[in-house]
Amino acid sequence: MIMRNSIGTPLSSNALKIMLLGCGEIGKEIIIEAQKFGIQTIGVDRYANAPGHQVAHKSYVIDMKDADALRSIVNKEKPDVIIPEIEAINLDVLEEFEKEGFLVIPNAKATWTAMERERIRELISNEAGVETSKYAYADTNNMDEILSGVQKVGYPCWIKAIMSSSGQGSSFVKNPDDVKIAIDDAKKNARGSGEKVIIEEHVPFDIEITQLTVRHLSQDDNIATTFCRPVGHYQIDGDYHSSWQPWIDEGAIVNGKKITKELIELGEKKIYEAAGKITDALGGLGLFGCELFVVFDTQNNDVKVYGNECSPRPHDTGMVTFITHLNGLSEGGLHVRATCGLPVPAKEWNGYRIIEPIAKGASHVILAPMAGQNIEFKNVSEALQTFGTSVRFFGKPEAHINRRMGVALAIGETVEEAKKKAEKLAHTIQMRTLENPKWKKQDIFEKHLVCKD
Amino acid sequence: MIMRNSIGTPLSSNALKIMLLGCGEIGKEIIIEAQKFGIQTIGVDRYANAPGHQVAHKSYVIDMKDADALRSIVNKEKPDVIIPEIEAINLDVLEEFEKEGFLVIPNAKATWTAMERERIRELISNEAGVETSKYAYADTNNMDEILSGVQKVGYPCWIKAIMSSSGQGSSFVKNPDDVKIAIDDAKKNARGSGEKVIIEEHVPFDIEITQLTVRHLSQDDNIATTFCRPVGHYQIDGDYHSSWQPWIDEGAIVNGKKITKELIELGEKKIYEAAGKITDALGGLGLFGCELFVVFDTQNNDVKVYGNECSPRPHDTGMVTFITHLNGLSEGGLHVRATCGLPVPAKEWNGYRIIEPIAKGASHVILAPMAGQNIEFKNVSEALQTFGTSVRFFGKPEAHINRRMGVALAIGETVEEAKKKAEKLAHTIQMRTLENPKWKKQDIFEKHLVCKD
Repeated sequence: MIMRNSIGTPLSSNALKIMLLGCGEIGKEIIIEAQKFGIQTIGVDRYANAPGHQVAHKSYVIDMKDADALRSIVNKEKPDVIIPEIEAINLDVLEEFEKEGFLVIPNAKATWTAMERERIRELISNEAGVETSKYAYADTNNMDEILSGVQKVGYPCWIKAIMSSSGQGSSFVKNPDDVKIAIDDAKKNARGSGEKVIIEEHVPFDIEITQLTVRHLSQDDNIATTFCRPVGHYQIDGDYHSSWQPWIDEGAIVNGKKITKELIELGEKKIYEAAGKITDALGGLGLFGCELFVVFDTQNNDVKVYGNECSPRPHDTGMVTFITHLNGLSEGGLHVRATCGLPVPAKEWNGYRIIEPIAKGASHVILAPMAGQNIEFKNVSEALQTFGTSVRFFGKPEAHINRRMGVALAIGETVEEAKKKAEKLAHTIQMRTLENPKWKKQDIFEKHLVCKD
Repeated sequence: MIMRNSIGTPLSSNALKIMLLGCGEIGKEIIIEAQKFGIQTIGVDRYANAPGHQVAHKSYVIDMKDADALRSIVNKEKPDVIIPEIEAINLDVLEEFEKEGFLVIPNAKATWTAMERERIRELISNEAGVETSKYAYADTNNMDEILSGVQKVGYPCWIKAIMSSSGQGSSFVKNPDDVKIAIDDAKKNARGSGEKVIIEEHVPFDIEITQLTVRHLSQDDNIATTFCRPVGHYQIDGDYHSSWQPWIDEGAIVNGKKITKELIELGEKKIYEAAGKITDALGGLGLFGCELFVVFDTQNNDVKVYGNECSPRPHDTGMVTFITHLNGLSEGGLHVRATCGLPVPAKEWNGYRIIEPIAKGASHVILAPMAGQNIEFKNVSEALQTFGTSVRFFGKPEAHINRRMGVALAIGETVEEAKKKAEKLAHTIQMRTLENPKWKKQDIFEKHLVCKD
């Protein structure tokens, strides 16, 4: 593959065309960034007026599990780049597209690998050679296998459906009594048949991070890997709730450990090394979100990094780059550059190519406290009064409880300050719908810094 | 007027709707920024597939001078905010819309005032009380009046058509021989009848700046004025060619004068004061681009500021904020916030509300060196290799010679460095069209720093 030399005119016969399979909030950002380059954008999703549809040149509503439906629009549009934004896509047809010469991002195999916990875990552990927590697999209908897996991994552990979205079908298992409940939950909330679970050791990590990692073409037409500064985040019920960048303030106290500059630098080297290996093993072009656990060993001045998962696409937690990165270089903008064969300039740090944020910042989800349509957000002006804050409302036409409807963004002198600002902003917003007309704020407060029940 | 409390869902009955009259590159940015807030966007322009159309929820192609055509879409869409992006709009109907209760930005009168050099000059000089260069008006068919005007103002001077766009119909007049040529040019290139010219004293300014000034609602529901750091720029043939922010590096030498920190601070105070008066006189909500001339008097440690023009909307030169401002706060984002009644947080500096850029930066236009369709840009990857640069291709479906097709953006350690980077980037790009298939770079080099003929 070689770097892109030219870009034509959107809606003309020489247009550079990208097709987004999935048009949620991340797809919307990717499309906006593509539009800035004069790239023609085609948005595909399973429902009308999805966020990305609203900014795309052309929109399609299809079932992306349906091979024929996908094939018909790909044949019609002949996109230069096919960018899956979600996992629920017919993978067989993606592979066929690739064989026929379409550029599938990052590549069909990586998309196939990353969508199942077993496959990505094997890739991280075996192909990439990155340490993971202990793990075992089991058939959900074979209690012997389950119990022997749990015994191998030890308590406490996680039992997770092999395929699921956003923390669905994942349970924290403290003792033998929890096992059956966890298995039932995995069966019920899995995507697909729910016949298999992964049993994972619980790593008592100090911080969970997403390493946004870009594989892109370099001047010599080889692939280069460029790293954003690590994104710290926490999840609630397996779903991203707040993220921040860079991952930690110098001198911060985490679980009673004081995190020095030296530990942060050592940690970053190990993080970039691990993410580089994982994304090399996945291959292809684009931005990846490698989820890693970090444990600080202050006694030995050491840091341990464990591979967890990796999304072969921009990551929910990476929305913090909507405010921390230079305009045009958000994770969406970087994905556009990488996937379209455009360069990603970087600075060198200890042998790694790094994109330095322009400020310390944080993001916090705005979740729907009710279901319904004609969603309305209140207290917007009050929320936006603070300097260095911003908000995105994704424009989703329908809410369901705890659906992500927007994201609060903030910069600050410290990561801690930015986290508090974003959290406050998100919890200032109220919401209502046609069906549920009583104003409500979001009501999840677990792990919060300033907003309490 | 009161600050906006709530925002509904785009494409639903409770959507907050803005209508852009004019969908060029600035309209495109305004629409992108509105989309981030989940605001419904309606783009109107005289030709299909205008840049802003490509990112809007809904598009119309009409002659905006046609009152009936405008009325029919406004009645149909009932926008909450009507945002003129260009001057060539039927003003009578804008005034009617305002009387009927539509919010016209910044207001119909300001739009009317700013579109004619005579009116805006009178407003700056008389209503706002801001010093301007000497000036006189004359009928293009009355040579006595013309010559007496020129005599009053003195040589060298400018003769400009009262109404025109982007430097058309403006001539620099050095001596009596130039007068007739200038009058013929003004007649030929005026917008409208071309019956009147303004004769302006030539101020030997050290720097020409655009003061992006935001009038927006504050917490007490009064109007507050917030200032971006001044944007320096130069024009070629009356058209913006490069701009940068902030306006000057500390210690820079300009026309042999060393510009100290004290002079810069004094200059900024006078600039904000002048721009505040001018925008107060224009009134309404939104971002304005006040064009001012600055003369440094290093002997007396003084700075003189002259009012020139003011656009009641985001300004071409303000495109530098696409890279120098925090994501979401470009001049387009600020215009969205101000016009939709959302807050514009700022820092206080000497009694002025200021938006500090996140970096020093510059912009440089990418002009078409030929006419035609199916425009193609070459050397894009080469141009984007440099750290801290970006490019926007507007996606215009048709080029004509020297039409603005894109803009190069760069940040740097100094304004000077950023200017050079943006200039190099813009001059690296080559272009061709279906009709003119030979690759060419843009070929204007006047006032350039590094790219020479």
